[in-house]
Amino acid sequence: MVARMSDQSLSARAEAVSHAVSRILSGFLEEIDYFTRREQPGMLDFTFGDPREMPPEAYVSALRTAATPKREDWFAYKMYEPAAQEAAAASLRQLTGLPFEPDDILLTTGGFAALSVGVKAVADPGDEIIFSLPPWFAYEVLIVEAGLVPVKVGIDLATLDLDIDAIAASITPRTRIVIVNSPNNPTGRVYGPGTLGRLATVLEEASLRHGRRIFLLSDEPYNRIVFRGGQFHTPAEFYPHTLVAYSYGKTLLAPGQRIGYLALPPALPDRPALRRAVHDLQIAIGWAFPNAVMQYALPELEQQAFDIERLERRRDLMVDALTGMGYQVHRPEGTFYLFPRSPIADDETFAHLLAEQQILVMPGAMFETPGFFRICLTATEETCERSLPGFAAALAHATATVP
Amino acid sequence: MVARMSDQSLSARAEAVSHAVSRILSGFLEEIDYFTRREQPGMLDFTFGDPREMPPEAYVSALRTAATPKREDWFAYKMYEPAAQEAAAASLRQLTGLPFEPDDILLTTGGFAALSVGVKAVADPGDEIIFSLPPWFAYEVLIVEAGLVPVKVGIDLATLDLDIDAIAASITPRTRIVIVNSPNNPTGRVYGPGTLGRLATVLEEASLRHGRRIFLLSDEPYNRIVFRGGQFHTPAEFYPHTLVAYSYGKTLLAPGQRIGYLALPPALPDRPALRRAVHDLQIAIGWAFPNAVMQYALPELEQQAFDIERLERRRDLMVDALTGMGYQVHRPEGTFYLFPRSPIADDETFAHLLAEQQILVMPGAMFETPGFFRICLTATEETCERSLPGFAAALAHATATVP
Repeated sequence: MVARMSDQSLSARAEAVSHAVSRILSGFLEEIDYFTRREQPGMLDFTFGDPREMPPEAYVSALRTAATPKREDWFAYKMYEPAAQEAAAASLRQLTGLPFEPDDILLTTGGFAALSVGVKAVADPGDEIIFSLPPWFAYEVLIVEAGLVPVKVGIDLATLDLDIDAIAASITPRTRIVIVNSPNNPTGRVYGPGTLGRLATVLEEASLRHGRRIFLLSDEPYNRIVFRGGQFHTPAEFYPHTLVAYSYGKTLLAPGQRIGYLALPPALPDRPALRRAVHDLQIAIGWAFPNAVMQYALPELEQQAFDIERLERRRDLMVDALTGMGYQVHRPEGTFYLFPRSPIADDETFAHLLAEQQILVMPGAMFETPGFFRICLTATEETCERSLPGFAAALAHATATVP
Repeated sequence: MVARMSDQSLSARAEAVSHAVSRILSGFLEEIDYFTRREQPGMLDFTFGDPREMPPEAYVSALRTAATPKREDWFAYKMYEPAAQEAAAASLRQLTGLPFEPDDILLTTGGFAALSVGVKAVADPGDEIIFSLPPWFAYEVLIVEAGLVPVKVGIDLATLDLDIDAIAASITPRTRIVIVNSPNNPTGRVYGPGTLGRLATVLEEASLRHGRRIFLLSDEPYNRIVFRGGQFHTPAEFYPHTLVAYSYGKTLLAPGQRIGYLALPPALPDRPALRRAVHDLQIAIGWAFPNAVMQYALPELEQQAFDIERLERRRDLMVDALTGMGYQVHRPEGTFYLFPRSPIADDETFAHLLAEQQILVMPGAMFETPGFFRICLTATEETCERSLPGFAAALAHATATVP
């Protein structure tokens, strides 16, 4: 007699990962048929942080130069190219004031891989990892794939600052990592020394209390995108057990060319062991070292300035105009994003009203933070200007018809 | 009172991965100080499958063209570019005779990522995965990271063919995947229809017996590198539940520019669910989609011919010369590799003797197959010719001094 064959093709892990992905990519975006709709002429797309203008000539030139071989092994297997590590370390030293060493810049295929190997280097299946809502959409996906337990805490919705008490209250003996994302996507908030100092104290005390080190994973791809009057501080200034994840996809607006890194701060104990662990995990998760061309281009790309003043003008244009209409919106200190309150409680309904005006945004529900929506300012000035009547009309419609 | 703080930084997973990596990259290569020594003039390097000549102009030109933007979103987030999927599917259809669909070509950052997501899509921690020795060095690394249990079986060392009976005997109710690598690295063997048909029967029967499907993971980056008189057959011809992993790093000899795919054969049941699972896992393991430039270049790269005749001349030169000296060496049907028997039982000692002659090879111990060594034929003709006196001297030395 033959046993009945299970029809189950997919692993439980794959099912769990897909469930985490679908929470983001289905729902609202599917309802509005986003991926078709964004191609239509006249659409005012404020959703993803994708480029909306032709890439700068300097960027293209850097790639083309780096694609021209100078040695036989130009396209051979690459791990970390020393010139790329040195350029990245110099830049990070200048930004943070901390003496990062080139050997501690562990170059990856972008921010996803940096976060993935950072998590896996220190945490095992069953460990808990805390992050704040609204989060970057991929945290939960990465965490579930790694077999860890996501623990979500709210922020202070009045100030959009971290809620340190809430983080402290959610720490358990199984807590291994706390993720901090500053400058924050989607709120645009840059956390100050007071907040980061208090968090460091909480993590130090909790580590001692439970007899097991809690790591801080600092996800800081926007650390160069801070407006006048603001000041970026890496959590690594305040807490030595910090792993710094960085992506070049934001300042270069080229997320399709994958390069980033996990950096080990100079005050972090046990760096040689962590270097080795991250390196070996990069092999193991799928050879997550950046392409040869991107590594050769990196010293040049590090020199390419992001036009922060132009982005700041867009921020001010939108914040001033929306505030003038009656929207409640915090003026972000950094990033590409605005995170206004939805004028009605149901942010998905409001995002549909905006979509009727050809304006595509992401409702707060996509970030597990109902009552808000996200506007991405990689849209051009022209798109921003053209969107204003639609934002006004949707607001009028919402407040007139919805109680 | 304060609890004693654990000094343990690394996760158990990271320790296990590093252990698997170190089995390969330490040991012999460290003993001979490989990474310094290979840079020395006059060194005859037959170790890794890295390029030893300047990249072809056509390859460079394809990359430079693909780096020139034609639209605003040229470097935006990329998943699968349809033109790349179509080019890869057409090529795979022509090679295999199976009607692969473009939507089933799931483009990845090379072969490592293709194998990783293939494994994770169907297998959960604790599942067993069978592969044959000598293996590709990274199988165990990928398997350990995924939390699976590696189960290793020998091959027929007389013929270098798969040992189907040994595979059958090692299947348990927990077996979820069997990896097949043909053309094989390091043996150069191309498995024939008889072998693959018998394996399919074993896997079908065992799946029915245990009530759970066993998948075949076909790792075939060398499927275009087959010499005259040989004929490649993908296991997917014989067993529908096959996942096909491919890398462009071998025919293009550019493993530093990551591109490959996991392909779902047309006869595989449940393809829509598997497509979705693999796609989401590619996000989750670290956004393992190829860079934009590589995807745009792929249709052109698919046209670039690998000079198989030149490689075949090197194969014949070395096999004939080594055989003439008294070495026992199988004439490989495909790949870059020769896998001669070590003239003395201790292959590491023999590799040291070759290193004294400035000849760098990999001892069989690195492949868990003592008594053999691997020669990589990406070395130039000149290197091959110049190595012959050294191979003769090492053989004479070994047989004169070692019992």
